[in-house]
Amino acid sequence: MSYIEDTICALATPSGMGAIGVIRISGPKAIEIADSIYQSPKANKRLSDAKGQTLHFGSIYDGDALVDEVLLSLFRAPHSYTGEDVIEINIHGSTFIQRKMLELLVRKGARPARAGEFTLRAFGNGKMDLSQAEAVGDLIASESSAAHQVAMHQMKGGVRREVAQLRQELIDFASMIELELDFGEEDVEFADRTQLHELLNKVQATVTRLTGTFTLGNAIVEGIPVAIVGAPNAGKSTLLNALLKEERAIVSEIAGTTRDTVEDEIHLGGLTFRFIDTAGLREATDEIEKIGIERSYAKIEQAKVVLYLFDAAIADTEEEQNRIQTIKDKAGNKPVIVIANKIDKVASTPSSLPIDVPLSAKNSDGLDKLEELLLDTVEIKGLSSNDTVITNTRHYEALIRTQEDVDRIRTGLNINLSGDLVAFDIRQALAHLGEITGEITTDDLLGNIFANFCIGK
Amino acid sequence: MSYIEDTICALATPSGMGAIGVIRISGPKAIEIADSIYQSPKANKRLSDAKGQTLHFGSIYDGDALVDEVLLSLFRAPHSYTGEDVIEINIHGSTFIQRKMLELLVRKGARPARAGEFTLRAFGNGKMDLSQAEAVGDLIASESSAAHQVAMHQMKGGVRREVAQLRQELIDFASMIELELDFGEEDVEFADRTQLHELLNKVQATVTRLTGTFTLGNAIVEGIPVAIVGAPNAGKSTLLNALLKEERAIVSEIAGTTRDTVEDEIHLGGLTFRFIDTAGLREATDEIEKIGIERSYAKIEQAKVVLYLFDAAIADTEEEQNRIQTIKDKAGNKPVIVIANKIDKVASTPSSLPIDVPLSAKNSDGLDKLEELLLDTVEIKGLSSNDTVITNTRHYEALIRTQEDVDRIRTGLNINLSGDLVAFDIRQALAHLGEITGEITTDDLLGNIFANFCIGK
Repeated sequence: MSYIEDTICALATPSGMGAIGVIRISGPKAIEIADSIYQSPKANKRLSDAKGQTLHFGSIYDGDALVDEVLLSLFRAPHSYTGEDVIEINIHGSTFIQRKMLELLVRKGARPARAGEFTLRAFGNGKMDLSQAEAVGDLIASESSAAHQVAMHQMKGGVRREVAQLRQELIDFASMIELELDFGEEDVEFADRTQLHELLNKVQATVTRLTGTFTLGNAIVEGIPVAIVGAPNAGKSTLLNALLKEERAIVSEIAGTTRDTVEDEIHLGGLTFRFIDTAGLREATDEIEKIGIERSYAKIEQAKVVLYLFDAAIADTEEEQNRIQTIKDKAGNKPVIVIANKIDKVASTPSSLPIDVPLSAKNSDGLDKLEELLLDTVEIKGLSSNDTVITNTRHYEALIRTQEDVDRIRTGLNINLSGDLVAFDIRQALAHLGEITGEITTDDLLGNIFANFCIGK
Repeated sequence: MSYIEDTICALATPSGMGAIGVIRISGPKAIEIADSIYQSPKANKRLSDAKGQTLHFGSIYDGDALVDEVLLSLFRAPHSYTGEDVIEINIHGSTFIQRKMLELLVRKGARPARAGEFTLRAFGNGKMDLSQAEAVGDLIASESSAAHQVAMHQMKGGVRREVAQLRQELIDFASMIELELDFGEEDVEFADRTQLHELLNKVQATVTRLTGTFTLGNAIVEGIPVAIVGAPNAGKSTLLNALLKEERAIVSEIAGTTRDTVEDEIHLGGLTFRFIDTAGLREATDEIEKIGIERSYAKIEQAKVVLYLFDAAIADTEEEQNRIQTIKDKAGNKPVIVIANKIDKVASTPSSLPIDVPLSAKNSDGLDKLEELLLDTVEIKGLSSNDTVITNTRHYEALIRTQEDVDRIRTGLNINLSGDLVAFDIRQALAHLGEITGEITTDDLLGNIFANFCIGK
C-alpha cells in the first residue's frame, strides 16, 4: 500500500495549553527524522542505535535554536501501535512549541498526518482488523462507562471473534451442502436435511443475536434522549438541576478533570441520558395551550423515554388524568414516567392518578426511584464485559445484509436450488461479514471511517 | 518538607478528547500504586522490579474490569522531573478514561495534585531553582517565539546564573570592604577607594542591565497592545484581516495545530501584537465625533503603539493634519504610525501629511513596511538566545529592591558608614537576590507562584 512509504507526524494530545503534549511520528524515516533534531545529553548517542521500546531524555534543536527539552519514546517496527517505526515525543504543552515541533518535523521530511491515519496504518499493517480500528475511535469518544466497556471489548477483538465464528459456521455449512449437492442427482442424502437446517439455524441465530444488540448499542453510544414534558411551573428545571447536582458532586471529587458539561445530560448506571428541552405545556388560553402541546408532541417524537411532570400542590385531578392519557397516547409504545413533583407541599398525592414517582425536586427526595425507572427503560442490567454489543451502524447494516443472504440460502435450500446458486449466496454472506472486519474494503470506505477520527490517532 | 511524603496524581495533558492523554504520578508510592492496577502481558512482570527510565506496555485494571491498554514510563528517584519516583501513563484520550484513571489512582492511595505541584516538588528536591520553576510555567504559556526563547533560556538557568554572578560580585565587594574597614581606624587605605567604587559600579551595572530588560520582557510575555484609530470607513477591519490572513496562511500549512484564534492578535518577528478595538473616529455631527474621539483617546491610553489610519481617497488634507496632530499629542511619547490606506484608488498621497506607510489593505500592498515599523517599536532585533531577559514582575521587583540596597551601600561608602551597617545592606541585597532563586521563600510566596500553574505540571 502506498501510504506506508512516507512518514507522518501529528499532535496526539488535545490541542491547547497543558503540562505535556505528545507528538507522534510513524513511518520508515521516523527514527532518522527524530535523530536529525534530537540531541542526547550524552555526546554521540544516537536514536538510530537505540533498541525498540526505550525512553530517551534530551533536547530538540532547530539548527542552533533549542526548541524544547523532551522525553522521547522509541518503538521499532513491527512492535509499535502502527506496526512501523514510531517516535513519541513528550514536549512542554505550549501551543507555540506544538506548532514549532510540527513545522520542524515537516521541514525534516515528515508529512502532517490526516485524521485517523495512525490507526489506518495499524489496520493496514495487520495490527488490528477494521472493527477494532473503529473501536479505537469509539473508545476515545466514550463518555460513559457502558460506552467505554463496549468499545474496549470491541477493541480487544469482540466483533472480530464473532465474525470469525459466523464465518466458520458458514464454511461448515458450505462444505456440508457441497457434499449434499454433489450427490444430489443420485438422490443420496449424505448429510441429512435436519442437520443442514440445524447448521443454518445456528448461523441465523448468531446473526440475529448480534443485530438484536444494536438497539442497546445505539443507546449506549448515542445516549438516550429523554423528553421532559410539563407545565412551566411544574419544576422541570429544578428536577434537571437536582439530577445534575448529584452527578456533579461525584465528578468534582477528582480535581483536574473539569470537563465541558453539557447542561442537559446526565450519566446514570454507566449510560448517558440526554434531556430534550420541551416548550412546556402552557397554561393561559386554550388556543395557546394547544400550540404548546403540539410542540411538546414533536419533542416526544425525538425521545425514547418521556417524563411527564406535574405540580402535585396545584394539580386538578381530572385535568391531569386527561393530560397524562393524551401524552401516553402520543408516546405510543415509548415508556412514559409520570412524576408528581413538589410532594413536600402536600399531605398526599391523588390516588386516582397513575403516578410512577412522587418526588420533591427541591429537596432531592425521590430521585433514586426516578433514576431506577430511567435505567429500567434500557435493557443494560444483564450486560457483562464479555458480551459483544453492536454499536456501529456500518456493522449493523452489514449484519442485516448477511441476514438477508442467510434467508436466501434457506429459501434456496428449501426449493432445492442448484449448488452454484447457493454457493453464490454463501459468498455474498462471507463478503458482507468481510466488510465488518475490513477483509473487503474500498478506499472510499476507509476514507469515510478514518475521517471521523481525531488527528494524531 | 511535608509535601513530599504523599504521592500525587493528575492529568498532565489538556483535558478533552484526544488520541492520547498522559496521567502523571509522583511520590514515594508512585510505583507501588501503579503496580496495584497494572498488568503486564508477561505474567508476573512487576513494575517494582523494573529499572528507572523504562517503557512498559500493559493493561490497567480496576479489579476485574479492564480500564485501558496503556504505555507506561517509569522513572526512579532522583532521576525524574520531580526528583521522586514518577510514573507517566499514556492512556487513550477519552474523557471517561481520564476520570476513571484518576478516580482509581485516588482510591489506591494517590492524592489529586494541586496546580503546579509537580514543579513545586522539583524545586523542593533541588532539581531547579525558583526562577527556573517559574520559567516552566512561562514556557507552557508561551505563544510567540520570543516568549518561548526567553522562557527556555530562563528554564535552562539564565536568571539563576545572573543572580549567581551578582551574588559573587557582592561577596567580592564585601570581602574588600571588610579589609578596608578593619584597617579604617588606622587610616590605611588597603584597597584603594577607586577599586572599591569600581566593584560597586560593576554590581550596579549588572542590576541595571537586568532591570533594563524588563520593558522588553514584559512586551514579549504580555504582547504589545496596539490601538488602531481611524474613521469607520478608513479600512481598519480590512487591514486587520490582511495582517491576520498573512499569518494564518503560514499557520495553516501545518494541519493538526488548529489553535483558538484570538481574532485581533498577530505574531510578527516572534512577538505578539494585540490590537485594541477602538470605537472609531465617527463622522456625522461634531458632537458625536467628539465622543468617538474621546473613546479612541481612552484606548490610546491602554496601548503601547498607535496606528492612525485614514482613507487616502477621500482625505481632506487640512483636517487630517489636525487630526494626526491631536492624536500625536494624546499619544505623548508612544510611537504613532500614520497609515494612508486605499492607495490603490489614488494617484499619489498628499505630500504635506506625515505619512509613515502608504498601503492598500485590500490588495495587501505595503504590509511589509507596516510590519517593519511595528517591529521597530520594540527593541528586540538584537536579542540573542543567550541573553537573559527579565519577564517576571516578581524578579523585576526583587531586582529593584536590590538596586536600592546597592544605592544605600554606595551612600554608606561615601559617608564612611561603619562596617556593620554596610554589611547589613549587603545582606539585604543578598536576601533580595535569594528571593528570585528561591533560597529565601515563604509558603505564601510558593503558594502564589504555583497556584498559577496548570494542574499536572
